[in-house]
Amino acid sequence: MTGFVSLVGAGPGDADHLTLGALKALQSAQAVLYDALVSEDIIALAPAKCVKICVGKRGDRLSVPQDKTNALMVRLAKKGLHVVRLKGGDPSVFGRVEEERDYLEAHNIAHKTLPGVTAASAAAAQFAFPLTHRGEARSVTFLTGRTKDGSIDLKETAVCDPQTSLVFYMSSHNAAHIEARLIAAGRSANTPIVIVENAGRAHARALKSTLSQLATQVSDAAYEGPVLIGVGEAFRFARLDASATLNACQKLQMQAQTA
Amino acid sequence: MTGFVSLVGAGPGDADHLTLGALKALQSAQAVLYDALVSEDIIALAPAKCVKICVGKRGDRLSVPQDKTNALMVRLAKKGLHVVRLKGGDPSVFGRVEEERDYLEAHNIAHKTLPGVTAASAAAAQFAFPLTHRGEARSVTFLTGRTKDGSIDLKETAVCDPQTSLVFYMSSHNAAHIEARLIAAGRSANTPIVIVENAGRAHARALKSTLSQLATQVSDAAYEGPVLIGVGEAFRFARLDASATLNACQKLQMQAQTA
Ligand SMILES: C[S@@+](CC[C@H](N)C(=O)[O-])C[C@H]1O[C@@H](n2cnc3c(N)ncnc32)[C@H](O)[C@@H]1O
Ligand SMILES: C[S@@+](CC[C@H](N)C(=O)[O-])C[C@H]1O[C@@H](n2cnc3c(N)ncnc32)[C@H](O)[C@@H]1O
Repeated sequence: MTGFVSLVGAGPGDADHLTLGALKALQSAQAVLYDALVSEDIIALAPAKCVKICVGKRGDRLSVPQDKTNALMVRLAKKGLHVVRLKGGDPSVFGRVEEERDYLEAHNIAHKTLPGVTAASAAAAQFAFPLTHRGEARSVTFLTGRTKDGSIDLKETAVCDPQTSLVFYMSSHNAAHIEARLIAAGRSANTPIVIVENAGRAHARALKSTLSQLATQVSDAAYEGPVLIGVGEAFRFARLDASATLNACQKLQMQAQTA
Repeated sequence: MTGFVSLVGAGPGDADHLTLGALKALQSAQAVLYDALVSEDIIALAPAKCVKICVGKRGDRLSVPQDKTNALMVRLAKKGLHVVRLKGGDPSVFGRVEEERDYLEAHNIAHKTLPGVTAASAAAAQFAFPLTHRGEARSVTFLTGRTKDGSIDLKETAVCDPQTSLVFYMSSHNAAHIEARLIAAGRSANTPIVIVENAGRAHARALKSTLSQLATQVSDAAYEGPVLIGVGEAFRFARLDASATLNACQKLQMQAQTA
């Protein structure tokens, strides 16, 4: 009997961002192949006897090449196992999920995909900024500062409309390029920006600045975790003391529960 | 003692899309104010003795005006309650969350926001299409076919780059306008489109077509539930038999569990 593969979004942070559907998939997993960005408390939710393999990619530091991951998924599924391919955030957003589905279908392996909270949504909630806002941010674009061949003409993308919120994934190495190209494309040097590292985790860091400071801020911060860059009017709402608010809320919540 | 408000994303479908964090918030809620788009099985997860009020908006059929919802949140929080404001999808995406936070802060009510799976992610997972794809869809934009004043010049937004996936929210009434403007802005009439109603639910419907058929397809389908429209190369991957695949997977999963 052939098994099957669940391509599952784990969300970008701790287990609170996992969906109930993803939890169920994980609990019935017989093998889990997970990205480096998936947090340990999530992987710990899979059964103890389940095979757990990190096929982690972290930006340019690609540990397991995509074709090895693909082959591994198929090999495990052909043993009759329920394989959970656990991906950071939402699998459909910069997740290479279509390449994996395509490979599975070429090998006659049944699959399903479960969505997750994407990093931009987690960052927005944690630091209390909207991604769209009436009258000021009528759309939001998730993009990268690079393409396959390493360059991208930002002018071609959604950059000339000041009413678009731009959220850059996988782009901290391209901050200088993004800053220069956006300003050249007509965005004001004073456009609000937000930079969020490790969104959705307790140790997340966020800073607010303006577009003309983007490259400097990124290089000063010396990020080690995954980073998102937001450029647009919506990001001026970011509350960097969000964790303080959160703690106050949690205290109230505990009082409410014990009352 | 003043209570506080959790602004919580419920995801766009059934309870499988709820996050563990949202579930916890709901279980400790003393009052729940929910959107019409939030499904009943999710609302049922709040404690039985908790106040549950539908402040539902459904497209143009606005049942409770925003200022009434705001006032209600504040009134309940001032009674010392933990109020959960439960929103469809992700609160930061077309969710008016900033307006609610702003109002809460003006009334000195502590708040936190919890992210959710946005409708586009749920639709993409359910019908197995990516939102971005190497070489063909280097970014994704969530936008609407209308603005405050009812019109929007799509030319100004991310529409001229054929490598952007466009996902229109709240736009089924503007299908003809979107079709005409995108073609006028240079998008090919043959651009793949996908239309998904009730994403993330068992009774979801999806169809695949091309941009030149958008208005006709929307009017033929006579949608009653919430609808997303995707325009771009990424949408040609949509698998409309996804529920068939899903059922096969679920059968295998059950076999695996009983084995
Ligand atoms: C390969 S992409 C995967 C994105 C993922 N599928 C999602 O929906 O969030 C990896 C990039 O996502 C962003 N990212 C992922 N997790 C993040 C986090 N916790 N905080 C900030 N950015 C994150 C970073 O830009 C990182 O370089
Ligand atoms: C006011 S917006 C709220 C969006 C929500 N915050 C989100 O992140 O999905 C409502 C619009 O979202 C889209 N939507 C919400 N739930 C949906 C679903 N289950 N299926 C398809 N579209 C949905 C529709 O375009 C609907 O008109």
